[in-house]
Amino acid sequence: MGAPVERTRIRRLPDKAVREREALHAVLDAGLAAHVAFAHEGQPYAIPVAYARAGDTVLFHGSTGSRLFRHLAGGAPCCLSVTLIDGLILARSAFEASMRYRSAMILGTCTVVEDQVPALRAISEHLVPGRWALIRPPSRKELAATLVLALPLSEWSLKVSDGWPETSPDDAGWSPPTGVIPIRTVREAFIEGEA
Amino acid sequence: MGAPVERTRIRRLPDKAVREREALHAVLDAGLAAHVAFAHEGQPYAIPVAYARAGDTVLFHGSTGSRLFRHLAGGAPCCLSVTLIDGLILARSAFEASMRYRSAMILGTCTVVEDQVPALRAISEHLVPGRWALIRPPSRKELAATLVLALPLSEWSLKVSDGWPETSPDDAGWSPPTGVIPIRTVREAFIEGEA
Repeated sequence: MGAPVERTRIRRLPDKAVREREALHAVLDAGLAAHVAFAHEGQPYAIPVAYARAGDTVLFHGSTGSRLFRHLAGGAPCCLSVTLIDGLILARSAFEASMRYRSAMILGTCTVVEDQVPALRAISEHLVPGRWALIRPPSRKELAATLVLALPLSEWSLKVSDGWPETSPDDAGWSPPTGVIPIRTVREAFIEGEA
Repeated sequence: MGAPVERTRIRRLPDKAVREREALHAVLDAGLAAHVAFAHEGQPYAIPVAYARAGDTVLFHGSTGSRLFRHLAGGAPCCLSVTLIDGLILARSAFEASMRYRSAMILGTCTVVEDQVPALRAISEHLVPGRWALIRPPSRKELAATLVLALPLSEWSLKVSDGWPETSPDDAGWSPPTGVIPIRTVREAFIEGEA
């Protein structure tokens, strides 16, 4: 484990910082979409992407037609964040109200993945395991329209909030129900259909 | 409706662009967390925040102890994104595999909200309607530790993918099941407890 280094050292609520690489992997493996932040012409953007983790790399893809993706492919510094919201923490005070969450943040620059097919398969399998074997693989023309980017898990942080509401002496006299509303992302039954 | 202007004009998949402000409001009202992107010392970040919409403004809060929040409060350009994942689209080809999503992106700079309590109440009510009336309001000391920021809905884009898998002539001979796996964020039953 090399990271987190200075820029990803968690200063706020450091007791929530998790430094095990296995925990980072687990959060990345559990997420569906990431947000990639970068600046273009002085303007920051946070764009959602589908992704997968492959070993110590995060893979994601976009269109060669996207100026923002081409900018990322050109080595612009970026941040890829995956946030899982696990619950709402209901405390006695407004100040202690918060969320249960797992929040991964990876800093770095992307490289263009030349061997696209295994990376696209990884993203497909991350979202729908077993699907790749059933579908038409990408054609040469489709691959030419696709940018696959890789971001290494070298500089990263992971913050996990999984506790219960805190109470302070100031809360004396206030006794609302306190606890947690768990939040879960569920996949419902497959609906057959085509455009 | 003034926006989207040039920087938020949707170039990729423009048929997915939605320009009604009411639709933007609905997406912001349905989300739990946003990602705020900004650059600090040349490094972009995407940090998750709880938020609420109040009219044509997005409100969110952080700690006065956070150097990143203080940077945002100082007027750094930022992007606030709310992404709702609604389903996985299973097509015949890898290329047409995609997601159902609603993705809102707001560009601008934040201002510091001096009248903190109504803004904090809005964020609380956004997450747990009715909760504010039951809990201890923030003390003067707690307010002093809290930065509340406002980002106007002036420059924004909304992209909605809610369709079915596309098929092309190249898919002849490939007939996996095609359709959509709906994805839903559910709140489970409240669990009473305290730290």
